[in-house]
Amino acid sequence: MDNKPGTVHDVKAQVADEALVARRRGQIIAAAVELFSHQGFYRTTIQDVAKKAGVSAGLIYQYVSDKEDVLLLALLSVLESYKHEIPAALEGLSDPLERFVAAIRAYCRVVDQRREATVLAYRSTKSLPDDRRQLIKDCEIETNGMIAACLADCIKAGLMREVNVELVTYQLVTFAHSWALKHWRLKELCGLEQYVAEGLDFFAQALLTPKGRRQWEKLGVTTIC
Amino acid sequence: MDNKPGTVHDVKAQVADEALVARRRGQIIAAAVELFSHQGFYRTTIQDVAKKAGVSAGLIYQYVSDKEDVLLLALLSVLESYKHEIPAALEGLSDPLERFVAAIRAYCRVVDQRREATVLAYRSTKSLPDDRRQLIKDCEIETNGMIAACLADCIKAGLMREVNVELVTYQLVTFAHSWALKHWRLKELCGLEQYVAEGLDFFAQALLTPKGRRQWEKLGVTTIC
Repeated sequence: MDNKPGTVHDVKAQVADEALVARRRGQIIAAAVELFSHQGFYRTTIQDVAKKAGVSAGLIYQYVSDKEDVLLLALLSVLESYKHEIPAALEGLSDPLERFVAAIRAYCRVVDQRREATVLAYRSTKSLPDDRRQLIKDCEIETNGMIAACLADCIKAGLMREVNVELVTYQLVTFAHSWALKHWRLKELCGLEQYVAEGLDFFAQALLTPKGRRQWEKLGVTTIC
Repeated sequence: MDNKPGTVHDVKAQVADEALVARRRGQIIAAAVELFSHQGFYRTTIQDVAKKAGVSAGLIYQYVSDKEDVLLLALLSVLESYKHEIPAALEGLSDPLERFVAAIRAYCRVVDQRREATVLAYRSTKSLPDDRRQLIKDCEIETNGMIAACLADCIKAGLMREVNVELVTYQLVTFAHSWALKHWRLKELCGLEQYVAEGLDFFAQALLTPKGRRQWEKLGVTTIC
């Protein structure tokens, strides 16, 4: 079992069956995210979550210790999705630019699918105790590392110019997060596909070397999303 | 008096002296932002705010009707700072690129000076009733309009390429907001000056036309902050 900081294994369950734990927690998280998002973390009780999830409060306590655990699991679940979806999107791709594009697209798709939980991370991470908040931060740094690695590979291959990789990575991830954070406005301007395509075009212009530009055009990146 | 949506004038005070209202509200907001940031909006009472501000709860009720009013004023105060600081920074500048740079710098300076309130906006806007939340959104669109106008002027002057102005404006403002939202990490990587300088360089690369590039170099933008 993975005991690194920032994983769901930091939350103790009384049930040994890992598949059952994952499934039950998925149900609990889905209900909790909806409630936390609409009525706020403080005004939501475990009883509310149980009712929404269609289970008993007693059952919930077999999978988490308290409401902070539920919030932590909800926030980690988005980060875990990045950790799963990005490598899956990169599978079989060797061209650094293709990998960069695939990683950004996968990241944005997760944000789109988990919009409420993404917003919740900005709203409620501070409601967690310090040690739990640290887990989220460590996990964010780890997730950003996957984007940073794609960026670094493009630079190494001479396809992108030398930039401060970690700062540019924040530009990339906050671009993706904005789709959730500013969805009230952005959805009036464009759909996800256009948002990602225009973002990729923007980042390409900012980062590509002449060699990278030729490769970008060869890949025809901005026309597919 | 300005009665457009999204101004502090939407919050009623029992005191007529506008300068006194502004001063007292400044005191109340400063105390409230600190408390809302550290213990959350729901767990903070008007009594807590009064104690922190060194005034009586009765006095606070002469300047606001309830805790939601205090939150609204706190969030509007950051947006009002943009509305004040950006035009001030643009005064006397006629070159579109210089104006663009000055606007971004002014925006980032406000975010830096109002880091806690900026984070609070992401955390707590949803705690406001719908009509109050709409005020914040309208005010954000209005503030973004100032950045969008600078961007549009650069495009019109042939200094920047044709882009989706509103989408790129979101890139610019979320870059600035990130300085507050991700300060826990960014402060380990660089100071505000370097953050803004590298950001400006990034946006310049993404946006400038060859004509814009020559003008940018002439201005020596990335060397001053």
